[in-house]
Amino acid sequence: MKQTAVIGAGSWGTALALVLADNGLEVDLWARSEKQAEAMHSSRRNMRYLPGVELPEQIKPTASLETAVKDKDMIVLVVPTKAVREVLPALRPLLKEGAVIAHASKGIEPETHLRVSEVIAEELPGHPVACLSGPSHAEEVCKRQPTTVTSSSLHMETAELVQDVFMNTYFRVYTNPDLTGVEIGGSLKNIIAIGSGMTSGLGFGDNARAALMTRGLAEISRLGVKLGADPLTFSGLSGLGDLIVTCTSYHSRNWRAGNMIGKGMTINQVETEMGMVVEGVRTTKAAQQLAEKLDVEMPITSELYAVLFENKDVEEAVEALMGRVKKHEMEAPAVSRNTNRDPLDHFEP
Amino acid sequence: MKQTAVIGAGSWGTALALVLADNGLEVDLWARSEKQAEAMHSSRRNMRYLPGVELPEQIKPTASLETAVKDKDMIVLVVPTKAVREVLPALRPLLKEGAVIAHASKGIEPETHLRVSEVIAEELPGHPVACLSGPSHAEEVCKRQPTTVTSSSLHMETAELVQDVFMNTYFRVYTNPDLTGVEIGGSLKNIIAIGSGMTSGLGFGDNARAALMTRGLAEISRLGVKLGADPLTFSGLSGLGDLIVTCTSYHSRNWRAGNMIGKGMTINQVETEMGMVVEGVRTTKAAQQLAEKLDVEMPITSELYAVLFENKDVEEAVEALMGRVKKHEMEAPAVSRNTNRDPLDHFEP
Repeated sequence: MKQTAVIGAGSWGTALALVLADNGLEVDLWARSEKQAEAMHSSRRNMRYLPGVELPEQIKPTASLETAVKDKDMIVLVVPTKAVREVLPALRPLLKEGAVIAHASKGIEPETHLRVSEVIAEELPGHPVACLSGPSHAEEVCKRQPTTVTSSSLHMETAELVQDVFMNTYFRVYTNPDLTGVEIGGSLKNIIAIGSGMTSGLGFGDNARAALMTRGLAEISRLGVKLGADPLTFSGLSGLGDLIVTCTSYHSRNWRAGNMIGKGMTINQVETEMGMVVEGVRTTKAAQQLAEKLDVEMPITSELYAVLFENKDVEEAVEALMGRVKKHEMEAPAVSRNTNRDPLDHFEP
Repeated sequence: MKQTAVIGAGSWGTALALVLADNGLEVDLWARSEKQAEAMHSSRRNMRYLPGVELPEQIKPTASLETAVKDKDMIVLVVPTKAVREVLPALRPLLKEGAVIAHASKGIEPETHLRVSEVIAEELPGHPVACLSGPSHAEEVCKRQPTTVTSSSLHMETAELVQDVFMNTYFRVYTNPDLTGVEIGGSLKNIIAIGSGMTSGLGFGDNARAALMTRGLAEISRLGVKLGADPLTFSGLSGLGDLIVTCTSYHSRNWRAGNMIGKGMTINQVETEMGMVVEGVRTTKAAQQLAEKLDVEMPITSELYAVLFENKDVEEAVEALMGRVKKHEMEAPAVSRNTNRDPLDHFEP
């Protein structure tokens, strides 16, 4: 029987392992810490990330990369983007020839500006790579609630293979050949989620959030297209769909981080308090660098960058965003228009 | 001094009157019932729709259409779509020559399939027409929270005039010449809001809602483009933005109606219980007719139509939507694929 491994036992890695187990596959679930692996093994639960979910017998927790990876036909990589560069060299000598790497990490590497699939291609040459992305809270997947995601790869057969392995009645997988668009959408939506949390933290409502998300998707799309993505991808599950889930749910750690910042905390205080990586923070830096390099206008990213890395006052940043004056919705922002004049001056054409 | 009137004293009409008053204009606010107009006049509140908001002196409630409309340069029409055909003939003889009609009604007329601006053009020939639409809860506007909307007209000067009259620091107005796209997006989003409420009523979560919204915007856009709209409009404030606000907020009456249906009520029971028009129900009928006429695939609209008008079981309808099998995200849905086969059959290409 063919076997798979999931590398990374956070909530999403665990949920994906559960989907594979539901589909009748054996799954080695690798956790970084021996203690966590043992606890999962003995309790049949992932107490830290998904305490309410029972892990079936087909899921085999382990802290040994070698045990996890050896002889596996597919490796599902679900570690924080920051950890990808560390884990891959350790995987390389252990991988079966031709093993497929399906990753679900969302982010862009600062400095190199590489997407995760590009980092994987550098570190694991010769292995087919796919990205799994879409609107998906792990908790809901574990309750077998209807969920839809996208499988993307430069090679359609790889995307379809990943689709076939994960697809079932509650977990619907669609393929999309636009790997750039899928990865950019999934990564950059975390920036908008931080911004969305900030507006709520400042006491703004649904109207402001919807405006931010709309403008946010537009700037993600602008950068993506400049990088070669298909603009349609951003209207799909891995773009719009994922943006909606991440920005409108209090589960999202990026949203929660933004919310705390909106209430006055610094990002350092937030990361200490949460005890977790906030992917969107690193992504904001990478996206800001990319926007400058490619000369793409990304006002939301730039304001958030200033708040996160240059101590800009969060209220000033959000006011700057909401108050941006633009005459025509589809135009690039124009020079500020004087809107304080008497509206009656222009009442009759 | 130039004066304006708002026709319709629901929550949105009242909020728009407040924006105009904040901008220094005098506003006659017309309510259908004498009793409501008098109560607003004496209490300086709209107790039924916006009890917490004080109405400034510049807002003059009246139940007389003649008083409201006479000598006004701009009429803001904010009545339920169903009432538009009734109100317009009464307005016609009272209107000042050249008075601008800015409407904020969201819907499509069943049978004729006309958008509200087209109905206005039929009933009030010679008057410039604009549509004001976007992500905007009335309650938040009344708290002066940041809100962005779109002003659209076939004539840019009309769109800009409405922009100038409404624009202020918390209420940002952008123009968009794509009147078809703006009205279709604002109207059809109510269908998806009903569907979104239904999925929640059935106990599904954020993943399912995000998928529904993503697919929903795609089908709205398909119909809109067939009607001549610019596809970009659906990614803007009056498309995506309004969809987000309406589908993710419990304030929306369309969402609430769908939620009750998801929990087992019929649409008749819901409308009796709410004591309000649910715009999305009529819009579902009009959109279903249009989709058939123009041969546009609108699976969400069709399933909702079957639930609302043909007594289809709501659970079956939502299952049908979530379970739709499609191989490629950007393709039209394919014939059902057998996904129950052993996934391992296809593990190695």
